[in-house]
Amino acid sequence: MNAPALPQHLIPQAQPREVPQALLDALQARFGEQFSAALVVREQHGRDESAFSMPPPAAVVFAQSTRDVADAVRLAASDRVPVIPFGVGSSLEGHLLAVQGGISIDVGRMSQVLSINAEDLTVTVQPGVTRKQLNEAVKSTGLFFPIDPGADASLGGMAATRASGTNAVRYGTMRENVLALEVVTASGEVIRTGTRAKKSSAGYDLTRLMVGSEGTLGVMTEITLKLYPLPEAVMAATCSFSSLADAVNTTIAIIQMGVPIARCELLDDNTIRMVNAHSKLSLREGAMLLMEFHGSPDSVKEQVQTVQDIASDHGGQAFEWADTPEARTKLWTARHNAYFAGIQSRPGCRAITTDTCVPISRLADALLDSVAEAQAAKLPYFLVGHVGDGNFHMGYLIDPDIPEERVRAEQLNSQLVERALKLGGTCTGEHGVGLHKMEFLRSEAGDGAVEMMRTIKRALDPDNILNPGKIFSL
Amino acid sequence: MNAPALPQHLIPQAQPREVPQALLDALQARFGEQFSAALVVREQHGRDESAFSMPPPAAVVFAQSTRDVADAVRLAASDRVPVIPFGVGSSLEGHLLAVQGGISIDVGRMSQVLSINAEDLTVTVQPGVTRKQLNEAVKSTGLFFPIDPGADASLGGMAATRASGTNAVRYGTMRENVLALEVVTASGEVIRTGTRAKKSSAGYDLTRLMVGSEGTLGVMTEITLKLYPLPEAVMAATCSFSSLADAVNTTIAIIQMGVPIARCELLDDNTIRMVNAHSKLSLREGAMLLMEFHGSPDSVKEQVQTVQDIASDHGGQAFEWADTPEARTKLWTARHNAYFAGIQSRPGCRAITTDTCVPISRLADALLDSVAEAQAAKLPYFLVGHVGDGNFHMGYLIDPDIPEERVRAEQLNSQLVERALKLGGTCTGEHGVGLHKMEFLRSEAGDGAVEMMRTIKRALDPDNILNPGKIFSL
Repeated sequence: MNAPALPQHLIPQAQPREVPQALLDALQARFGEQFSAALVVREQHGRDESAFSMPPPAAVVFAQSTRDVADAVRLAASDRVPVIPFGVGSSLEGHLLAVQGGISIDVGRMSQVLSINAEDLTVTVQPGVTRKQLNEAVKSTGLFFPIDPGADASLGGMAATRASGTNAVRYGTMRENVLALEVVTASGEVIRTGTRAKKSSAGYDLTRLMVGSEGTLGVMTEITLKLYPLPEAVMAATCSFSSLADAVNTTIAIIQMGVPIARCELLDDNTIRMVNAHSKLSLREGAMLLMEFHGSPDSVKEQVQTVQDIASDHGGQAFEWADTPEARTKLWTARHNAYFAGIQSRPGCRAITTDTCVPISRLADALLDSVAEAQAAKLPYFLVGHVGDGNFHMGYLIDPDIPEERVRAEQLNSQLVERALKLGGTCTGEHGVGLHKMEFLRSEAGDGAVEMMRTIKRALDPDNILNPGKIFSL
Repeated sequence: MNAPALPQHLIPQAQPREVPQALLDALQARFGEQFSAALVVREQHGRDESAFSMPPPAAVVFAQSTRDVADAVRLAASDRVPVIPFGVGSSLEGHLLAVQGGISIDVGRMSQVLSINAEDLTVTVQPGVTRKQLNEAVKSTGLFFPIDPGADASLGGMAATRASGTNAVRYGTMRENVLALEVVTASGEVIRTGTRAKKSSAGYDLTRLMVGSEGTLGVMTEITLKLYPLPEAVMAATCSFSSLADAVNTTIAIIQMGVPIARCELLDDNTIRMVNAHSKLSLREGAMLLMEFHGSPDSVKEQVQTVQDIASDHGGQAFEWADTPEARTKLWTARHNAYFAGIQSRPGCRAITTDTCVPISRLADALLDSVAEAQAAKLPYFLVGHVGDGNFHMGYLIDPDIPEERVRAEQLNSQLVERALKLGGTCTGEHGVGLHKMEFLRSEAGDGAVEMMRTIKRALDPDNILNPGKIFSL
């Protein structure tokens, strides 16, 4: 009998299109030292944090301006050669892989904060600006940009995947926080979508169509974002629970009560052990909620009181408070390091990460059964969750040299997604579809909706050159 | 010399396509008493609150189910006959007019609240449910739906125009509050977009593409919306100012301070007089802010204190508080009646309504110059504003028997839009483009972005049967 094999849809086959030498020559001539076909550079741009491997792109263009992007797209378009936008390479789902070959357009050097309109709470950036760089740039204005997916991702990548992270429960995702875009289309034309007005009914919402389109409908070259006043008071807290169910049910109650909590994150006991080992902490080993409250001093006090009451009703204990910036940073660094703590807990391993999001009342069903399944499968895992949004990630820690572990992890992921869809949820809360979730998207959205996406793609990119082979097969 | 004439783009020409008698017979056979070709019924469905007039549709189908809508669309599609979705007819921009002829699909009888998921703060409705009906239906759950465009519009119409209104400053617009849709496409297929999960990165954001597409990409047959916990405490207030500038600058400061105000509305002295006359009130005649605060008792107290301080700094006076539901209802009824108060102030008149929205810091520039121009033009007007969003409406009250007044009103509107666009704003904050703002959309979005909209439209509706001739010419 054969060992169980990966389902076919999880073995994306490279189908590289021909990249004519004349195109490479033309790119070299146009871009000079901003062009590279060196293998090491191509390989850097041919992988991401996903479990897939693929031959690298044929070359890399380091764009420094909208004009650069437009010219690179136009040149590639004339030979029907794919272009793949590249930010910092932190995708988890294979978005950056050159599955149909082509040219990587690295926008990392487009890293200017173009204009800060503090009086309107907006900022316009180039796509290579990272979220930390942005917050550094706006610091003196008393404003901040809340979206925080963990990695110090580029804002172009975050917009392209509709990213969110720990603050989304209060401040929304990239969907809610991108106001306007400048985009290079498949023909190399530059268009603008949206304005700096807070709301608009002016035609199709092209901004929201581009956000989350994973580079398949255009290359973003400018991004206008919302900013928020730094809260007058901030309080962070951890609370331990003797069971995962208690922690999850506390979260559900907090959201249902309408507490405007700014962050509400979950780690299970297993993950706490990993974080303690990695970050040399001594957090109590048990399911833990990590929370943050923003507002006026009185409002923060009120939120804290409400949440303490709810948590106590569910057996929450060992509340620890962090009210200085240093203490908060330490606490959140531990949370952000959970991914790496997980990886480090099994040297040489690779994480297969899940990303479902369900309606808040179904969170316990979705999460507890998935953890039980992972434990029964005896596969090491970590569990982190933006549980206030109904979104959680399991990372199955597999040995890449044991193919059977990958199969088991993908099987667990598949069961987890199926469960989430049955509960009214989505296969991806924030990582995107990429190469990994194309089949899940079909289950979730149905053939009709996926065909509508394909129809839009074909209309806007008739030669299928913009990051082809992602989201759906085409 | 000729009198000044309306620009050509404001005189939309009816270009009715042929509606074969066989189609009418087939619709009659399929829909029986749910079908009408009676002139009075057609005329009811051939007008809205806009200044345009157009021959009515050839017939009306009263859909009672998704199946009904799909069948009506399929039948019409087979003869390439336009279909125009109809809710309650409260459009201000000509969305409902049969500019290319065709069939009106009235979804008013699709008025069921299909499922209330109080524990997830979501609800799913048919498109004919009105916002008041929805709030009645969810009342016992302690939740409410905040979007309030004034008229008791259908939720289908509100989604189709990306409506918002008085509460949007805190709760967002239909863009932020529609979670998922069921949609009948141009071929009569039924698709679903989105899920009940709060966030998702699963492919193109078809939900947001449909929201605001004015019936040109599909007919919505189910709408899943967010609900919110009824605030524990609510306080409403009015504050009078001796100048319009002071009221506007107070608003700007409130938003820039990050006060989570739930409503922040402006009326000018001229409009207050109209409201007093219409609603038999004795509001102080001066520029007035009408505000509402939601939250815990302490948080409301805090917001009120902050706003009082800001208003006092700008010469605000004569604060009046309404903390009982009755007093609040009276106050907001006055606000909602401003439109009718304006109309009534000049018997027989018709209002040409503007709808720009600008970044908050530019609100004074946008609003004060526009009022000054209207006064200089000696055209009666009313002014109401969702000023917390940077959105305001002027209603020029014209005598429909004096064509020159319409010309003057459209000229003022044109200047006002041009100014808003220069200030980084949009030509329509919440009413939509319809027949009225197609030229403005071109100025705002640029030919490239409008062409992208057209390309999407052509791809999803190749025979151009879904509410054709709206948003852009096609």
